[in-house]
Amino acid sequence: MQFHHHGYVSGDPRVEPAAGVGIDRPTELPDEVDVLIVGSGPAGMVAAAQLAQFPDVTTRLVERRGGRLEIGQADGIQARSVETFQAFGFAERIIAEAFRITEMAFWKPDPENHANIHRAAVTPDDPTGISEFPHLIVNQARVLDYFAEYARNSPGRIVPDYGWEFVGLEIAQPGPDGELPEHPVMVTLERATGVGVGAGDASHAVALDGELTGERRTVRAKFVVGADGARSKVRESIGAQHVGAQSFHAWGVMDTLAVTDFPDIRTKCSIQSEAGNILLIPREGGQLFRMYVDLGEVAEDDRGAVRKTTLDQVIAKANDILHPYTLDVRNVPWHSVYEVGHRVTDRFDDVPVEEQGSRTPRVFITGDACHTHSAKAGQGMNVSMQDGWNIGWKLGHVLDGRAPEALLETYHAERHVVAKELIAFDREWSRLMATKPEDLGDPAELEEFYVRTFEFPAGFMTQYEPSMIVGSQEHQELATGFPVGKRFKSAPVERVCDGNPVHLGHHHRADGRWRIYAFADRAPSRADASALASWAAWLAEASDSPLVAHAPADGGFDDVFDVKVVYQQPHGEVDLMEAPAVFRPATGPFGLTDYEKVYATDPAHDIFEERGLSRDGVVVVVRPDHYVAQVLPLSATGELAEFFRGALRAH
Amino acid sequence: MQFHHHGYVSGDPRVEPAAGVGIDRPTELPDEVDVLIVGSGPAGMVAAAQLAQFPDVTTRLVERRGGRLEIGQADGIQARSVETFQAFGFAERIIAEAFRITEMAFWKPDPENHANIHRAAVTPDDPTGISEFPHLIVNQARVLDYFAEYARNSPGRIVPDYGWEFVGLEIAQPGPDGELPEHPVMVTLERATGVGVGAGDASHAVALDGELTGERRTVRAKFVVGADGARSKVRESIGAQHVGAQSFHAWGVMDTLAVTDFPDIRTKCSIQSEAGNILLIPREGGQLFRMYVDLGEVAEDDRGAVRKTTLDQVIAKANDILHPYTLDVRNVPWHSVYEVGHRVTDRFDDVPVEEQGSRTPRVFITGDACHTHSAKAGQGMNVSMQDGWNIGWKLGHVLDGRAPEALLETYHAERHVVAKELIAFDREWSRLMATKPEDLGDPAELEEFYVRTFEFPAGFMTQYEPSMIVGSQEHQELATGFPVGKRFKSAPVERVCDGNPVHLGHHHRADGRWRIYAFADRAPSRADASALASWAAWLAEASDSPLVAHAPADGGFDDVFDVKVVYQQPHGEVDLMEAPAVFRPATGPFGLTDYEKVYATDPAHDIFEERGLSRDGVVVVVRPDHYVAQVLPLSATGELAEFFRGALRAH
Ligand SMILES: Cc1cc2nc3c(=O)[nH]c(=O)nc-3n(C[C@H](O)[C@H](O)[C@H](O)COP(=O)(O)OP(=O)(O)OC[C@H]3O[C@@H](n4cnc5c(N)ncnc54)[C@H](O)[C@@H]3O)c2cc1C
Ligand SMILES: Cc1cc2nc3c(=O)[nH]c(=O)nc-3n(C[C@H](O)[C@H](O)[C@H](O)COP(=O)(O)OP(=O)(O)OC[C@H]3O[C@@H](n4cnc5c(N)ncnc54)[C@H](O)[C@@H]3O)c2cc1C
Repeated sequence: MQFHHHGYVSGDPRVEPAAGVGIDRPTELPDEVDVLIVGSGPAGMVAAAQLAQFPDVTTRLVERRGGRLEIGQADGIQARSVETFQAFGFAERIIAEAFRITEMAFWKPDPENHANIHRAAVTPDDPTGISEFPHLIVNQARVLDYFAEYARNSPGRIVPDYGWEFVGLEIAQPGPDGELPEHPVMVTLERATGVGVGAGDASHAVALDGELTGERRTVRAKFVVGADGARSKVRESIGAQHVGAQSFHAWGVMDTLAVTDFPDIRTKCSIQSEAGNILLIPREGGQLFRMYVDLGEVAEDDRGAVRKTTLDQVIAKANDILHPYTLDVRNVPWHSVYEVGHRVTDRFDDVPVEEQGSRTPRVFITGDACHTHSAKAGQGMNVSMQDGWNIGWKLGHVLDGRAPEALLETYHAERHVVAKELIAFDREWSRLMATKPEDLGDPAELEEFYVRTFEFPAGFMTQYEPSMIVGSQEHQELATGFPVGKRFKSAPVERVCDGNPVHLGHHHRADGRWRIYAFADRAPSRADASALASWAAWLAEASDSPLVAHAPADGGFDDVFDVKVVYQQPHGEVDLMEAPAVFRPATGPFGLTDYEKVYATDPAHDIFEERGLSRDGVVVVVRPDHYVAQVLPLSATGELAEFFRGALRAH
Repeated sequence: MQFHHHGYVSGDPRVEPAAGVGIDRPTELPDEVDVLIVGSGPAGMVAAAQLAQFPDVTTRLVERRGGRLEIGQADGIQARSVETFQAFGFAERIIAEAFRITEMAFWKPDPENHANIHRAAVTPDDPTGISEFPHLIVNQARVLDYFAEYARNSPGRIVPDYGWEFVGLEIAQPGPDGELPEHPVMVTLERATGVGVGAGDASHAVALDGELTGERRTVRAKFVVGADGARSKVRESIGAQHVGAQSFHAWGVMDTLAVTDFPDIRTKCSIQSEAGNILLIPREGGQLFRMYVDLGEVAEDDRGAVRKTTLDQVIAKANDILHPYTLDVRNVPWHSVYEVGHRVTDRFDDVPVEEQGSRTPRVFITGDACHTHSAKAGQGMNVSMQDGWNIGWKLGHVLDGRAPEALLETYHAERHVVAKELIAFDREWSRLMATKPEDLGDPAELEEFYVRTFEFPAGFMTQYEPSMIVGSQEHQELATGFPVGKRFKSAPVERVCDGNPVHLGHHHRADGRWRIYAFADRAPSRADASALASWAAWLAEASDSPLVAHAPADGGFDDVFDVKVVYQQPHGEVDLMEAPAVFRPATGPFGLTDYEKVYATDPAHDIFEERGLSRDGVVVVVRPDHYVAQVLPLSATGELAEFFRGALRAH
């Protein structure tokens, strides 16, 4: 955590100084905004948290509920999301309160007595060490609390506007001069009752069931982010089609406090018995657990009948499935019948497929508004957060003038593919879980699929295609462990200034900056001439260097680019003061030196070995949302310059 | 973290439900209290945080400042304190914001040119891995914030009463019947001005320099804790003598933001040059550092002259010492001339030495009020916190009826010895640091002393003598890694219910409970008969078992004792439901089972090997403040019973 460099911070350093529109932010929703986010679920809240780091952008988030989410909905947190929490500054806190999954048990009918279940297999949860972060379970409400806190404590000081329902929107057509008005999206909102005590302060607002009051108003926005869930009205308003199987699958979900003799009650379990299927998820706090009791496919003519399944029926069914074990339920703080189909929306913004590329999208849909799937793979909240982050930084870059508007077209291009892959994975996983063991080709097929495909539900299979913000794989062999288009997988290094062992990726913050890592050639820091030194000199001074071309002329490139070096030597052999000056930029009003840009190799975990980095040096470019954008040799300065000419505007 | 077992907790689980006097706690200081703490420094704040876990005890803390400490004072956090933070639930948060020390550099005159300094040695900071927690640097203000938060979020809901100065006290004499009044200590307080906005809520109160207003009042207390710092009026009021060298040593201390070419500016350094000595401490946030510039011994007739040393003089001297490096100071948010002598008070409570044992002490002094020493070993805040914790749980136990009043006599007995050892250590360390390198027997004597004695400043040398709460070392060979009287050194284990790898000691909370660990004999959990099973049966049912003798008869022993078992097998071989019932107690209003008391051995870090535990099993008893109280064979039930007959009252 870096602070004090703008002057002494006496209180919690997580509270950043307000800036721009965050200073004297109006409590009341204004008539004109840059970005209007609809919905305070994971997708909307992450977009708001990211945009709060762009204090020159006026962002508001409307939510029809009267206050914070209190209970229920999703709870599975894949490791990719915990990496995200790290970037938003609360990983260590949520890890401390969450449940951690380290293995999964598979229970099946006992071959010796089919009426009973028995433990058939136990598999480790992250067999390949795909992330240094754990796989967690914690209620969605707490995840949202932390993002809300981040939004509130960031320079933009964003706090949700509770009690406003999105009713519809209209996008202005270009005038006779071919120009759009500055705020072309006209959004109609309706006041909902039920705003709780202290609404406007996310930490205290209390959710009450809101009713529409008839009081309407219009807000004009440059851009709208629809994060309003599966029944999205924003989706409807842009005429996007939600496509996919009409068939729904229903689950009785209950968050349960119970006494039981089932020995794996604190282990994630898939339980298949003659009487049906259960997915058991232990929850945070040591006692609570969630059970998804399979209620089967819902017939098209069901007309909500399945939703009438009572809690007692779900409990009775759970007991049948668990036989010979019993579940003495003492308290069920939340339950629901969760019906869900596999669906993806045809497009994630307001530009019809055939017009893509011809105009800038103005309205985006994210999260459940554009893809829904079963709870089995634990994806809903996670994929939605990545949607929100993706659109969040892109809007920030376009609105503060850093990037061309074309950047916004990459949102659909990138996230639509992810959603389609997700649905395909979820279909297969759901099919396997619903198949009777005796009908599987190999009885171990389910657990094998789980282990084999672990990278997917953990959130690490996403690999973006080449675009204006993802380069080619031409030089991939120089950094085999940082595949272009995939998320930057952190590795341990040593910080030179203080000898601290740190994780390189844990210093990525959700601050909207591009990151440029120079992994040095063999020469030590004090060498007069080296490939690294030449590259660094180019970066600092050449007219086509991104630091010169795309950052303020007064040398303040550090607000746009985070440039770091990693030497091949251990920290005792690297001389901080000999590293090129570009790695020791001046920072803050006192012109202090940032010492935390120069790294060394941890002999116990050599990052060059662990990530397959060329000993001749290599440059790795990382996007604001952690994805590897480019891998280049130190000599390829022209290609580096060209890459950023595509991604950023000239200053 | 355990929660939800009393019903669903929607918000931050760190906020515990209010209970007892914490429900409707009056904002105004009442006329009668159980415990009155004077001073909100580390000692007083920790005592308050601990007592907030005893909601049947009315505790108030008066502080003459108008609000929270904002800046300055101590910043060194030894690993023992981080263990303490873990027990108070904020270790992971403060670690994330603090600076971490991993090594120390020793700079000395360059033998080739005495006018210059050069780096003579670098030593690792924790060469022996004495704790799994790091050695940190963070401002005292933040440490106090976290303890204040804990006090406020604990069942007793304690918030400091800012703006009250302690003026004096009188202790009532026994009446003709030999009885003392219930609240025998009459304390006179005077209102100080300058209470800031929102005082009464530690998170918002702002410290203003207070002036006395003349408005006085009396508060009657059962016990008073003097935590009012080096010039303690509480110490004065009980007539205790502050003894020790009259000579003081002065340091110019400055928290500095600067530009420099000194390469170790982010490393803890001892710098000895021809021009004098500096102790350099990097601080949290990446930029700030603290320099202690040696101003030498203060003559007895100095009359405050040293305190007139200006900041410019300190900066000039620092530049002289650092030659050939320079320090271009840009901002100094805090500086002070810190004068300190090596002193210990003759007694830590109001009972004169010759009367010890004849009556219950009523007034205690803690922290700087009873011992002061140099900043060089970074001890001030750390030792004070342990004082506060020690008296805190003891007062809680006596006042809620769990323990006999004699327990309070162990406060002086235990902490006075620690203070004396500390002074002796500090003298030696100060002497070495002040000695010119050429005058040392061996030029490496300083760094060798640092490495050799590392356990001391890290806070782990404390070993309490046998008493009513520390047993004998008779059976020490059964658990050589848990020395009786020293703090319980945690080790990794596996939690059986969920297979999570956890640190056994990290589940110690500052909840006032005694902990009883049964390390099992070789038999597996499902064995019908074993030494462990017999011991567990005795513990659950025998009339002399502490669980029966010293806990409520309705079986709620879990509020008084935390009883855990660790098996020798890995978790896959331990059957949770076969472990004796005493390790699966019922908890909370729903009678749920606590699953987190049964542990297994982590094959990668066998706790039996790492802590030298007998394979025939062993019982380890740990005090509420983490100190190992007793090591016993599983067969020694009589001795276990006897031990607790001394430490606790019969129920
Ligand atoms: C009742 C329920 C139960 C669920 N159970 C599970 C589960 O058991 N397991 C699982 O993995 N996932 C579950 N999910 C799905 C999971 O919560 C979602 O995948 C995830 O929350 C998607 O995030 P999101 O931000 O896209 O949408 P959501 O979290 O749905 O957030 C949408 C937000 O928009 C608000 N909103 C909606 N319409 C409007 C409007 N017109 N105007 C203003 N605000 C509006 C809503 O109040 C809500 O706060 C459940 C979802 C729901 C709704
Ligand atoms: C100005 C200053 C600078 C210091 N600098 C360093 C340093 O550089 N390095 C280092 O290691 N240590 C330093 N220390 C020492 C370190 O802060 C202490 O060792 C540590 O704070 C001791 O904790 P404590 O709780 O015993 O006392 P303190 O932290 O001193 O707390 C005492 C509290 O009691 C209050 N108080 C005092 N008298 C009364 C009264 N009559 N009525 C009500 N309230 C009262 C005070 O306002 C204060 O809040 C410094 C201390 C001071 C005061």
